[in-house]
Amino acid sequence: MKTIVYQGMPGAYSHLAAIKTFGSGHHFHGLKTFHEMFLAMEEKQADMAVVPIENTLAGTIYENIDLLNTHEGRIVGECCMKIDHCLLGIPGTTLQGIQKVFSHAKALEQCTLFFKQHPWIEAVVHNDTAGAAAEIAAKGNAACGAIASSAAGDIYGLENLRMGIQDDCSNTTRFVLFTPAWDPQIKGDKCSLLMRLEHVPGSLANVLHHFVAKKLNLTKIQSRPLRGSLFEYVFYLDFEFAEEQAVEVAGFLDDLKNTVWELKILGLYHKDASWKI
Amino acid sequence: MKTIVYQGMPGAYSHLAAIKTFGSGHHFHGLKTFHEMFLAMEEKQADMAVVPIENTLAGTIYENIDLLNTHEGRIVGECCMKIDHCLLGIPGTTLQGIQKVFSHAKALEQCTLFFKQHPWIEAVVHNDTAGAAAEIAAKGNAACGAIASSAAGDIYGLENLRMGIQDDCSNTTRFVLFTPAWDPQIKGDKCSLLMRLEHVPGSLANVLHHFVAKKLNLTKIQSRPLRGSLFEYVFYLDFEFAEEQAVEVAGFLDDLKNTVWELKILGLYHKDASWKI
Repeated sequence: MKTIVYQGMPGAYSHLAAIKTFGSGHHFHGLKTFHEMFLAMEEKQADMAVVPIENTLAGTIYENIDLLNTHEGRIVGECCMKIDHCLLGIPGTTLQGIQKVFSHAKALEQCTLFFKQHPWIEAVVHNDTAGAAAEIAAKGNAACGAIASSAAGDIYGLENLRMGIQDDCSNTTRFVLFTPAWDPQIKGDKCSLLMRLEHVPGSLANVLHHFVAKKLNLTKIQSRPLRGSLFEYVFYLDFEFAEEQAVEVAGFLDDLKNTVWELKILGLYHKDASWKI
Repeated sequence: MKTIVYQGMPGAYSHLAAIKTFGSGHHFHGLKTFHEMFLAMEEKQADMAVVPIENTLAGTIYENIDLLNTHEGRIVGECCMKIDHCLLGIPGTTLQGIQKVFSHAKALEQCTLFFKQHPWIEAVVHNDTAGAAAEIAAKGNAACGAIASSAAGDIYGLENLRMGIQDDCSNTTRFVLFTPAWDPQIKGDKCSLLMRLEHVPGSLANVLHHFVAKKLNLTKIQSRPLRGSLFEYVFYLDFEFAEEQAVEVAGFLDDLKNTVWELKILGLYHKDASWKI
Protein backbone atom coordinates (compact mmCIF):
# COMPACT_ATOMS: atom_id res chain seq x y z
CA MET A 1 0.00 0.00 0.00
CA LYS A 2 1.37 3.37 -1.02
CA THR A 3 0.72 6.84 0.33
CA ILE A 4 -0.37 9.12 -2.49
CA VAL A 5 -0.68 12.86 -1.87
CA TYR A 6 -2.82 15.37 -3.73
CA GLN A 7 -3.68 19.03 -3.23
CA GLY A 8 -7.06 19.70 -1.69
CA MET A 9 -9.64 17.91 0.45
CA PRO A 10 -11.25 14.53 -0.26
CA GLY A 11 -13.40 14.92 -3.38
CA ALA A 12 -11.00 17.41 -5.01
CA TYR A 13 -10.41 16.80 -8.73
CA SER A 14 -6.83 15.79 -7.88
CA HIS A 15 -8.19 13.20 -5.47
CA LEU A 16 -10.49 11.83 -8.20
CA ALA A 17 -7.49 11.64 -10.57
CA ALA A 18 -5.58 9.70 -7.87
CA ILE A 19 -8.44 7.21 -7.41
CA LYS A 20 -8.88 6.87 -11.21
CA THR A 21 -5.18 5.98 -11.49
CA PHE A 22 -4.57 3.82 -8.42
CA GLY A 23 -7.97 2.40 -7.53
CA SER A 24 -8.94 2.31 -3.88
CA GLY A 25 -6.26 0.04 -2.39
CA HIS A 26 -3.96 2.85 -1.26
CA HIS A 27 -3.74 5.59 1.32
CA PHE A 28 -4.69 8.93 -0.26
CA HIS A 29 -3.80 12.07 1.65
CA GLY A 30 -4.91 15.61 0.75
CA LEU A 31 -2.57 18.52 1.51
CA LYS A 32 -3.18 22.25 1.50
CA THR A 33 -0.63 23.37 -1.09
CA PHE A 34 1.26 21.93 -4.07
CA HIS A 35 4.51 22.67 -2.25
CA GLU A 36 3.46 20.55 0.75
CA MET A 37 3.10 17.51 -1.55
CA PHE A 38 6.75 17.79 -2.58
CA LEU A 39 7.85 18.32 1.05
CA ALA A 40 5.91 15.20 2.12
CA MET A 41 7.79 13.14 -0.48
CA GLU A 42 11.15 14.66 0.55
CA GLU A 43 10.43 13.74 4.16
CA LYS A 44 9.43 10.21 3.13
CA GLN A 45 5.86 10.76 4.36
CA ALA A 46 4.51 10.06 0.86
CA ASP A 47 5.42 7.80 -2.06
CA MET A 48 3.84 9.67 -4.91
CA ALA A 49 2.07 12.95 -5.78
CA VAL A 50 -0.72 13.63 -8.26
CA VAL A 51 0.25 16.98 -9.80
CA PRO A 52 -1.96 19.01 -12.19
CA ILE A 53 0.23 20.59 -14.86
CA GLU A 54 -2.07 21.64 -17.67
CA ASN A 55 -5.72 22.56 -18.24
CA THR A 56 -7.50 23.06 -21.55
CA LEU A 57 -8.85 26.46 -20.43
CA ALA A 58 -6.22 27.81 -18.04
CA GLY A 59 -3.14 26.45 -19.87
CA THR A 60 0.10 25.36 -18.21
CA ILE A 61 0.36 25.57 -14.41
CA TYR A 62 3.80 27.19 -14.10
CA GLU A 63 3.98 26.71 -10.34
CA ASN A 64 3.93 22.93 -10.69
CA ILE A 65 6.41 22.83 -13.59
CA ASP A 66 8.76 24.74 -11.25
CA LEU A 67 8.16 22.27 -8.40
CA LEU A 68 8.84 19.30 -10.71
CA ASN A 69 12.02 21.02 -11.84
CA THR A 70 13.38 21.77 -8.38
CA HIS A 71 12.59 18.47 -6.63
CA GLU A 72 14.21 15.07 -6.84
CA GLY A 73 12.07 12.54 -8.63
CA ARG A 74 10.46 11.68 -11.93
CA ILE A 75 7.12 11.67 -13.65
CA VAL A 76 6.08 8.02 -13.97
CA GLY A 77 2.64 8.42 -15.49
CA GLU A 78 -0.16 10.80 -16.39
CA CYS A 79 -3.91 10.97 -15.90
CA CYS A 80 -6.45 13.22 -17.63
CA MET A 81 -9.72 14.20 -15.94
CA LYS A 82 -12.73 15.98 -17.34
CA ILE A 83 -13.63 18.78 -14.93
CA ASP A 84 -17.37 18.74 -14.25
CA HIS A 85 -18.41 21.44 -11.80
CA CYS A 86 -21.59 20.96 -9.76
CA LEU A 87 -23.51 23.38 -7.60
CA LEU A 88 -23.86 21.70 -4.21
CA GLY A 89 -26.10 22.70 -1.30
CA ILE A 90 -27.26 21.20 1.98
CA PRO A 91 -30.22 18.80 1.64
CA GLY A 92 -33.48 20.66 1.11
CA THR A 93 -31.83 23.79 -0.33
CA THR A 94 -33.23 25.27 -3.53
CA LEU A 95 -31.26 27.19 -6.15
CA GLN A 96 -33.55 30.20 -5.53
CA GLY A 97 -32.59 30.25 -1.86
CA ILE A 98 -28.81 30.31 -2.45
CA GLN A 99 -27.22 33.71 -1.77
CA LYS A 100 -23.51 32.83 -1.73
CA VAL A 101 -21.47 30.19 -3.55
CA PHE A 102 -17.97 29.25 -2.35
CA SER A 103 -15.24 27.66 -4.49
CA HIS A 104 -11.67 27.99 -5.78
CA ALA A 105 -11.09 31.19 -7.80
CA LYS A 106 -10.35 29.19 -10.98
CA ALA A 107 -13.58 27.16 -10.62
CA LEU A 108 -15.63 30.35 -10.06
CA GLU A 109 -14.03 31.86 -13.17
CA GLN A 110 -14.97 28.76 -15.19
CA CYS A 111 -18.66 29.22 -14.25
CA THR A 112 -19.09 32.84 -15.36
CA LEU A 113 -22.26 32.14 -17.35
CA PHE A 114 -23.92 30.50 -14.36
CA PHE A 115 -23.32 33.62 -12.23
CA LYS A 116 -24.59 35.87 -15.04
CA GLN A 117 -27.79 33.85 -15.19
CA HIS A 118 -28.17 33.96 -11.37
CA PRO A 119 -27.20 37.55 -10.58
CA TRP A 120 -28.43 37.39 -6.95
CA ILE A 121 -25.71 34.85 -6.08
CA GLU A 122 -22.36 36.09 -4.76
CA ALA A 123 -19.24 34.08 -5.82
CA VAL A 124 -16.89 33.82 -2.82
CA VAL A 125 -13.32 32.54 -3.14
CA HIS A 126 -12.24 29.49 -1.12
CA ASN A 127 -8.82 27.74 -1.18
CA ASP A 128 -10.26 24.56 -2.51
CA THR A 129 -13.35 23.24 -4.33
CA ALA A 130 -13.91 20.20 -2.08
CA GLY A 131 -12.93 22.26 0.98
CA ALA A 132 -15.74 24.69 0.15
CA ALA A 133 -18.17 21.75 -0.01
CA ALA A 134 -16.93 20.46 3.37
CA GLU A 135 -17.35 23.90 4.92
CA ILE A 136 -20.91 24.53 3.74
CA ALA A 137 -21.86 21.02 4.86
CA ALA A 138 -20.41 21.71 8.33
CA LYS A 139 -22.17 25.07 8.63
CA GLY A 140 -25.52 23.75 7.39
CA ASN A 141 -26.64 27.14 6.06
CA ALA A 142 -29.27 26.76 3.32
CA ALA A 143 -28.29 30.13 1.82
CA CYS A 144 -24.79 28.88 0.96
CA GLY A 145 -23.64 26.66 -1.89
CA ALA A 146 -20.32 25.29 -3.15
CA ILE A 147 -18.95 24.54 -6.61
CA ALA A 148 -17.11 21.23 -6.60
CA SER A 149 -17.18 17.71 -8.08
CA SER A 150 -20.27 15.56 -7.65
CA ALA A 151 -18.01 13.18 -5.68
CA ALA A 152 -17.41 15.98 -3.15
CA GLY A 153 -21.19 16.29 -2.84
CA ASP A 154 -21.45 12.56 -2.06
CA ILE A 155 -18.59 12.68 0.45
CA TYR A 156 -19.97 15.63 2.42
CA GLY A 157 -23.65 14.66 2.14
CA LEU A 158 -24.68 17.57 -0.06
CA GLU A 159 -27.37 17.77 -2.66
CA ASN A 160 -26.37 18.27 -6.30
CA LEU A 161 -28.50 21.28 -7.31
CA ARG A 162 -27.06 21.71 -10.80
CA MET A 163 -24.55 19.60 -12.77
CA GLY A 164 -22.06 20.70 -15.43
CA ILE A 165 -22.30 24.43 -14.68
CA GLN A 166 -18.91 25.25 -16.26
CA ASP A 167 -18.96 27.52 -19.34
CA ASP A 168 -16.96 25.06 -21.46
CA CYS A 169 -17.94 21.41 -21.19
CA SER A 170 -14.65 20.17 -22.71
CA ASN A 171 -12.68 21.50 -19.70
CA THR A 172 -10.02 18.87 -18.93
CA THR A 173 -7.01 18.79 -16.60
CA ARG A 174 -3.87 16.75 -17.18
CA PHE A 175 -2.20 15.41 -14.03
CA VAL A 176 1.23 13.78 -13.80
CA LEU A 177 2.27 11.18 -11.24
CA PHE A 178 5.55 12.17 -9.63
CA THR A 179 7.68 10.07 -7.30
CA PRO A 180 11.17 10.30 -5.78
CA ALA A 181 11.35 6.47 -5.94
CA TRP A 182 11.26 5.93 -9.67
CA ASP A 183 12.28 2.76 -11.39
CA PRO A 184 15.47 3.45 -13.39
CA GLN A 185 14.43 0.75 -15.85
CA ILE A 186 13.56 2.61 -19.03
CA LYS A 187 10.02 2.19 -20.26
CA GLY A 188 7.10 4.13 -21.65
CA ASP A 189 6.12 5.99 -24.80
CA LYS A 190 6.24 9.61 -23.66
CA CYS A 191 8.85 11.95 -22.22
CA SER A 192 8.66 15.35 -20.51
CA LEU A 193 11.74 17.55 -20.19
CA LEU A 194 13.01 21.07 -19.60
CA MET A 195 15.88 22.45 -21.68
CA ARG A 196 17.82 25.64 -21.13
CA LEU A 197 19.26 27.01 -24.36
CA GLU A 198 21.56 29.81 -25.34
CA HIS A 199 19.52 32.81 -26.54
CA VAL A 200 20.84 33.03 -30.10
CA PRO A 201 18.86 32.69 -33.32
CA GLY A 202 18.59 29.05 -34.26
CA SER A 203 19.33 27.41 -30.93
CA LEU A 204 15.85 25.89 -30.67
CA ALA A 205 15.68 24.85 -34.34
CA ASN A 206 19.07 23.14 -34.05
CA VAL A 207 18.01 21.16 -31.01
CA LEU A 208 14.67 20.17 -32.57
CA HIS A 209 16.51 18.69 -35.53
CA HIS A 210 17.99 16.09 -33.21
CA PHE A 211 14.42 15.09 -32.34
CA VAL A 212 13.50 14.88 -36.02
CA ALA A 213 16.45 12.64 -36.79
CA LYS A 214 15.12 10.14 -34.23
CA LYS A 215 11.49 10.47 -35.44
CA LEU A 216 10.33 11.66 -32.00
CA ASN A 217 6.92 13.25 -32.07
CA LEU A 218 6.68 16.60 -30.28
CA THR A 219 3.25 16.97 -28.59
CA LYS A 220 3.84 20.11 -26.52
CA ILE A 221 6.36 22.92 -26.61
CA GLN A 222 6.32 26.05 -24.53
CA SER A 223 8.93 28.74 -23.99
CA ARG A 224 8.98 29.63 -20.32
CA PRO A 225 9.37 32.99 -18.64
CA LEU A 226 12.75 33.07 -16.93
CA ARG A 227 12.77 36.16 -14.79
CA GLY A 228 15.72 38.50 -14.87
CA SER A 229 17.54 36.73 -17.65
CA LEU A 230 17.70 38.16 -21.16
CA PHE A 231 20.23 35.78 -22.61
CA GLU A 232 18.83 32.36 -22.06
CA TYR A 233 15.62 30.49 -22.62
CA VAL A 234 13.86 27.60 -20.95
CA PHE A 235 11.63 25.31 -22.98
CA TYR A 236 9.23 22.74 -21.67
CA LEU A 237 8.72 19.83 -24.10
CA ASP A 238 6.64 16.67 -24.28
CA PHE A 239 7.31 14.11 -26.97
CA GLU A 240 5.98 10.67 -27.80
CA PHE A 241 7.65 7.66 -29.35
CA ALA A 242 7.03 3.99 -30.05
CA GLU A 243 7.46 1.88 -26.92
CA GLU A 244 10.17 -0.22 -28.58
CA GLN A 245 12.23 2.99 -29.05
CA ALA A 246 12.50 3.55 -25.25
CA VAL A 247 16.14 2.43 -24.87
CA GLU A 248 17.16 4.38 -27.97
CA VAL A 249 15.40 7.45 -26.48
CA ALA A 250 17.40 7.09 -23.25
CA GLY A 251 20.61 7.19 -25.33
CA PHE A 252 19.32 10.16 -27.27
CA LEU A 253 18.67 12.05 -24.00
CA ASP A 254 22.24 11.33 -22.86
CA ASP A 255 23.55 12.86 -26.09
CA LEU A 256 21.17 15.80 -25.78
CA LYS A 257 22.78 16.77 -22.47
CA ASN A 258 25.91 17.74 -24.40
CA THR A 259 23.96 19.89 -26.88
CA VAL A 260 21.95 22.14 -24.54
CA TRP A 261 23.03 24.34 -21.63
CA GLU A 262 21.01 22.33 -19.18
CA LEU A 263 18.69 19.37 -19.52
CA LYS A 264 16.27 18.19 -16.86
CA ILE A 265 14.45 14.97 -17.71
CA LEU A 266 11.15 15.20 -15.89
CA GLY A 267 10.16 11.66 -16.76
CA LEU A 268 9.75 8.78 -19.20
CA TYR A 269 6.31 7.24 -18.84
CA HIS A 270 3.19 5.85 -20.51
CA LYS A 271 0.85 8.40 -22.01
CA ASP A 272 -2.84 8.71 -21.18
CA ALA A 273 -4.50 8.56 -24.58
CA SER A 274 -7.48 10.58 -23.30
CA TRP A 275 -5.48 13.84 -23.52
CA LYS A 276 -6.70 14.79 -26.98
CA ILE A 277 -6.55 18.55 -27.20
CA MET B 1 -8.65 61.73 -32.02
CA LYS B 2 -9.13 58.00 -32.02
CA THR B 3 -11.53 55.79 -30.09
CA ILE B 4 -9.60 53.15 -28.18
CA VAL B 5 -11.46 50.31 -26.46
CA TYR B 6 -10.35 48.21 -23.51
CA GLN B 7 -12.00 45.58 -21.33
CA GLY B 8 -13.17 46.83 -17.94
CA MET B 9 -14.13 50.08 -16.26
CA PRO B 10 -12.04 53.26 -16.07
CA GLY B 11 -8.99 52.50 -13.90
CA ALA B 12 -8.72 48.87 -15.15
CA TYR B 13 -5.16 47.77 -15.90
CA SER B 14 -6.09 47.66 -19.61
CA HIS B 15 -7.18 51.30 -19.36
CA LEU B 16 -3.85 52.23 -17.75
CA ALA B 17 -2.02 50.40 -20.56
CA ALA B 18 -4.08 52.41 -23.10
CA ILE B 19 -3.20 55.71 -21.42
CA LYS B 20 0.48 54.70 -21.11
CA THR B 21 0.53 54.04 -24.86
CA PHE B 22 -1.60 56.85 -26.28
CA GLY B 23 -1.44 59.61 -23.68
CA SER B 24 -4.64 61.45 -22.85
CA GLY B 25 -5.57 63.01 -26.21
CA HIS B 26 -7.97 60.22 -27.28
CA HIS B 27 -11.35 58.81 -26.44
CA PHE B 28 -10.96 55.69 -24.26
CA HIS B 29 -13.97 53.45 -23.92
CA GLY B 30 -14.25 50.49 -21.50
CA LEU B 31 -16.33 47.46 -22.57
CA LYS B 32 -17.58 44.50 -20.59
CA THR B 33 -15.95 41.64 -22.49
CA PHE B 34 -12.98 41.04 -24.77
CA HIS B 35 -15.37 39.97 -27.49
CA GLU B 36 -17.22 43.31 -27.37
CA MET B 37 -13.96 45.12 -28.18
CA PHE B 38 -13.64 43.20 -31.43
CA LEU B 39 -17.32 43.75 -32.25
CA ALA B 40 -16.92 47.51 -31.67
CA MET B 41 -14.06 47.59 -34.20
CA GLU B 42 -16.02 45.51 -36.71
CA GLU B 43 -18.94 47.93 -36.42
CA LYS B 44 -16.56 50.90 -36.84
CA GLN B 45 -17.39 52.17 -33.34
CA ALA B 46 -13.72 51.92 -32.35
CA ASP B 47 -10.34 52.38 -34.04
CA MET B 48 -8.17 50.25 -31.84
CA ALA B 49 -8.28 47.74 -28.94
CA VAL B 50 -5.83 47.19 -26.09
CA VAL B 51 -5.76 43.40 -25.68
CA PRO B 52 -3.98 41.53 -22.85
CA ILE B 53 -2.37 38.39 -24.26
CA GLU B 54 0.16 37.22 -21.70
CA ASN B 55 0.86 37.51 -17.97
CA THR B 56 3.99 36.46 -16.10
CA LEU B 57 1.93 34.46 -13.56
CA ALA B 58 -1.12 33.31 -15.50
CA GLY B 59 0.60 32.66 -18.85
CA THR B 60 -0.99 33.09 -22.28
CA ILE B 61 -4.60 34.28 -22.46
CA TYR B 62 -5.97 31.80 -25.01
CA GLU B 63 -9.30 33.59 -25.41
CA ASN B 64 -7.59 36.68 -26.80
CA ILE B 65 -5.25 34.78 -29.10
CA ASP B 66 -8.41 33.22 -30.56
CA LEU B 67 -10.06 36.63 -30.97
CA LEU B 68 -6.96 38.03 -32.73
CA ASN B 69 -7.00 35.00 -34.99
CA THR B 70 -10.66 35.21 -35.99
CA HIS B 71 -10.97 38.98 -36.54
CA GLU B 72 -9.82 41.23 -39.35
CA GLY B 73 -6.94 43.45 -38.31
CA ARG B 74 -3.36 43.48 -37.14
CA ILE B 75 -1.28 43.99 -34.03
CA VAL B 76 0.47 47.36 -34.48
CA GLY B 77 2.23 47.65 -31.13
CA GLU B 78 2.59 46.27 -27.63
CA CYS B 79 2.62 47.64 -24.09
CA CYS B 80 3.76 45.97 -20.88
CA MET B 81 2.32 46.94 -17.49
CA LYS B 82 3.40 45.94 -14.02
CA ILE B 83 0.30 44.82 -12.13
CA ASP B 84 0.22 46.45 -8.70
CA HIS B 85 -2.84 45.48 -6.72
CA CYS B 86 -4.09 47.82 -3.98
CA LEU B 87 -6.69 47.28 -1.29
CA LEU B 88 -9.16 50.16 -1.63
CA GLY B 89 -11.87 51.23 0.80
CA ILE B 90 -14.21 54.18 1.26
CA PRO B 91 -12.60 57.13 3.07
CA GLY B 92 -12.32 56.50 6.80
CA THR B 93 -12.34 52.69 6.49
CA THR B 94 -9.72 50.72 8.37
CA LEU B 95 -8.28 47.38 7.31
CA GLN B 96 -9.59 45.87 10.57
CA GLY B 97 -13.13 46.92 9.70
CA ILE B 98 -13.17 45.28 6.25
CA GLN B 99 -15.25 42.10 6.06
CA LYS B 100 -15.51 41.53 2.29
CA VAL B 101 -13.17 42.34 -0.57
CA PHE B 102 -14.43 42.35 -4.18
CA SER B 103 -12.30 41.89 -7.30
CA HIS B 104 -11.74 39.83 -10.46
CA ALA B 105 -11.12 36.12 -9.73
CA LYS B 106 -7.57 36.34 -11.18
CA ALA B 107 -6.70 39.35 -8.98
CA LEU B 108 -8.06 37.58 -5.87
CA GLU B 109 -5.98 34.52 -6.73
CA GLN B 110 -2.86 36.70 -7.05
CA CYS B 111 -3.35 38.01 -3.48
CA THR B 112 -3.58 34.66 -1.67
CA LEU B 113 -1.02 35.61 1.00
CA PHE B 114 -2.96 38.76 1.88
CA PHE B 115 -6.12 36.71 2.50
CA LYS B 116 -4.16 34.17 4.56
CA GLN B 117 -2.85 36.98 6.76
CA HIS B 118 -6.32 38.49 7.11
CA PRO B 119 -8.51 35.42 7.60
CA TRP B 120 -11.61 37.39 8.63
CA ILE B 121 -11.89 38.91 5.15
CA GLU B 122 -14.05 37.17 2.52
CA ALA B 123 -12.79 37.34 -1.10
CA VAL B 124 -15.80 37.89 -3.40
CA VAL B 125 -15.56 37.57 -7.19
CA HIS B 126 -16.48 40.55 -9.37
CA ASN B 127 -16.31 40.82 -13.20
CA ASP B 128 -13.70 43.53 -13.09
CA THR B 129 -11.10 45.05 -10.74
CA ALA B 130 -12.00 48.69 -11.41
CA GLY B 131 -15.71 47.78 -11.54
CA ALA B 132 -15.43 46.40 -8.01
CA ALA B 133 -13.85 49.70 -6.90
CA ALA B 134 -16.69 51.67 -8.56
CA GLU B 135 -19.28 49.50 -6.87
CA ILE B 136 -17.94 49.77 -3.32
CA ALA B 137 -17.58 53.55 -3.80
CA ALA B 138 -21.23 53.77 -4.89
CA LYS B 139 -22.46 51.65 -1.99
CA GLY B 140 -20.37 53.49 0.62
CA ASN B 141 -20.20 50.48 2.96
CA ALA B 142 -17.13 50.69 5.24
CA ALA B 143 -17.09 46.90 5.66
CA CYS B 144 -16.37 46.39 1.96
CA GLY B 145 -13.11 46.78 0.06
CA ALA B 146 -11.92 46.24 -3.53
CA ILE B 147 -8.67 45.04 -5.07
CA ALA B 148 -7.75 47.21 -8.05
CA SER B 149 -5.12 49.65 -9.32
CA SER B 150 -4.29 52.75 -7.29
CA ALA B 151 -5.57 54.74 -10.30
CA ALA B 152 -8.99 53.11 -9.80
CA GLY B 153 -8.84 54.34 -6.19
CA ASP B 154 -8.18 57.89 -7.39
CA ILE B 155 -10.96 57.74 -10.01
CA TYR B 156 -13.65 56.49 -7.59
CA GLY B 157 -12.51 58.53 -4.57
CA LEU B 158 -11.38 55.54 -2.51
CA GLU B 159 -8.66 55.32 0.08
CA ASN B 160 -5.64 53.15 -0.64
CA LEU B 161 -5.48 50.97 2.50
CA ARG B 162 -2.62 48.73 1.37
CA MET B 163 -0.41 48.87 -1.74
CA GLY B 164 1.29 46.01 -3.60
CA ILE B 165 -0.70 43.21 -1.96
CA GLN B 166 -0.04 40.70 -4.78
CA ASP B 167 1.99 37.61 -3.83
CA ASP B 168 4.55 38.15 -6.60
CA CYS B 169 5.74 41.71 -7.10
CA SER B 170 7.12 41.02 -10.61
CA ASN B 171 3.60 40.33 -11.94
CA THR B 172 3.44 41.92 -15.42
CA THR B 173 0.89 41.82 -18.25
CA ARG B 174 1.71 42.21 -21.92
CA PHE B 175 -0.95 43.97 -24.01
CA VAL B 176 -1.06 44.24 -27.79
CA LEU B 177 -2.64 47.07 -29.77
CA PHE B 178 -4.95 45.67 -32.42
CA THR B 179 -6.64 47.62 -35.22
CA PRO B 180 -8.63 46.78 -38.36
CA ALA B 181 -7.13 49.90 -39.99
CA TRP B 182 -3.47 48.95 -40.07
CA ASP B 183 -0.89 50.63 -42.23
CA PRO B 184 0.22 48.13 -44.90
CA GLN B 185 3.62 49.84 -44.98
CA ILE B 186 6.01 47.34 -43.41
CA LYS B 187 7.79 48.51 -40.30
CA GLY B 188 8.80 47.34 -36.83
CA ASP B 189 11.19 44.89 -35.22
CA LYS B 190 8.81 42.22 -33.94
CA CYS B 191 6.27 39.86 -35.48
CA SER B 192 3.51 37.68 -34.02
CA LEU B 193 1.99 34.84 -36.00
CA LEU B 194 0.01 31.63 -35.86
CA MET B 195 1.01 28.62 -37.97
CA ARG B 196 -0.90 25.42 -38.54
CA LEU B 197 1.39 22.51 -39.31
CA GLU B 198 0.96 18.93 -40.34
CA HIS B 199 1.28 16.63 -37.32
CA VAL B 200 4.30 14.62 -38.43
CA PRO B 201 7.66 14.36 -36.67
CA GLY B 202 9.90 17.21 -37.79
CA SER B 203 7.29 19.60 -39.15
CA LEU B 204 8.09 22.25 -36.52
CA ALA B 205 11.86 21.80 -36.74
CA ASN B 206 11.74 22.15 -40.53
CA VAL B 207 9.79 25.38 -40.33
CA LEU B 208 12.05 26.81 -37.62
CA HIS B 209 15.05 26.27 -39.86
CA HIS B 210 13.64 28.85 -42.26
CA PHE B 211 13.71 31.32 -39.34
CA VAL B 212 17.31 30.42 -38.54
CA ALA B 213 18.42 30.97 -42.12
CA LYS B 214 17.13 34.55 -41.85
CA LYS B 215 18.64 35.11 -38.38
CA LEU B 216 15.20 35.81 -36.88
CA ASN B 217 15.16 35.65 -33.11
CA LEU B 218 12.35 33.57 -31.62
CA THR B 219 11.13 35.11 -28.33
CA LYS B 220 8.02 33.02 -27.68
CA ILE B 221 6.72 29.72 -28.92
CA GLN B 222 3.69 27.85 -27.72
CA SER B 223 1.86 24.86 -29.11
CA ARG B 224 -1.84 25.49 -28.85
CA PRO B 225 -4.64 23.14 -27.95
CA LEU B 226 -6.74 22.54 -31.03
CA ARG B 227 -9.83 20.71 -29.89
CA GLY B 228 -11.04 17.69 -31.74
CA SER B 229 -8.10 17.45 -34.09
CA LEU B 230 -5.41 14.83 -33.63
CA PHE B 231 -3.57 15.36 -36.87
CA GLU B 232 -2.60 18.97 -36.88
CA TYR B 233 -0.97 21.50 -34.62
CA VAL B 234 -1.22 25.24 -34.13
CA PHE B 235 1.79 27.20 -32.93
CA TYR B 236 1.84 30.77 -31.68
CA LEU B 237 5.20 32.46 -32.32
CA ASP B 238 6.79 35.84 -31.59
CA PHE B 239 10.09 36.73 -33.20
CA GLU B 240 12.28 39.81 -33.26
CA PHE B 241 14.57 41.17 -35.96
CA ALA B 242 16.61 44.26 -36.80
CA GLU B 243 14.42 47.12 -38.03
CA GLU B 244 16.31 47.30 -41.33
CA GLN B 245 15.32 43.66 -41.98
CA ALA B 246 11.58 44.56 -42.03
CA VAL B 247 11.10 44.37 -45.82
CA GLU B 248 13.11 41.14 -46.01
CA VAL B 249 10.91 39.73 -43.23
CA ALA B 250 7.77 40.56 -45.23
CA GLY B 251 9.19 38.54 -48.15
CA PHE B 252 10.09 35.72 -45.78
CA LEU B 253 6.50 35.60 -44.49
CA ASP B 254 5.21 35.39 -48.08
CA ASP B 255 7.45 32.37 -48.68
CA LEU B 256 6.45 30.83 -45.35
CA LYS B 257 2.80 30.71 -46.50
CA ASN B 258 3.82 28.02 -49.01
CA THR B 259 5.59 25.93 -46.36
CA VAL B 260 2.93 25.63 -43.66
CA TRP B 261 -0.70 24.47 -43.84
CA GLU B 262 -1.96 27.86 -42.75
CA LEU B 263 -0.26 31.08 -41.73
CA LYS B 264 -1.96 33.98 -39.98
CA ILE B 265 0.23 37.04 -39.53
CA LEU B 266 -1.06 38.72 -36.39
CA GLY B 267 1.16 41.75 -36.85
CA LEU B 268 4.52 43.42 -37.56
CA TYR B 269 5.21 46.07 -34.94
CA HIS B 270 7.69 47.71 -32.59
CA LYS B 271 8.49 45.79 -29.44
CA ASP B 272 8.14 47.17 -25.91
CA ALA B 273 11.56 46.59 -24.40
CA SER B 274 10.08 46.42 -20.90
CA TRP B 275 8.82 42.84 -21.49
CA LYS B 276 11.86 41.15 -20.02
CA ILE B 277 10.73 37.80 -18.73
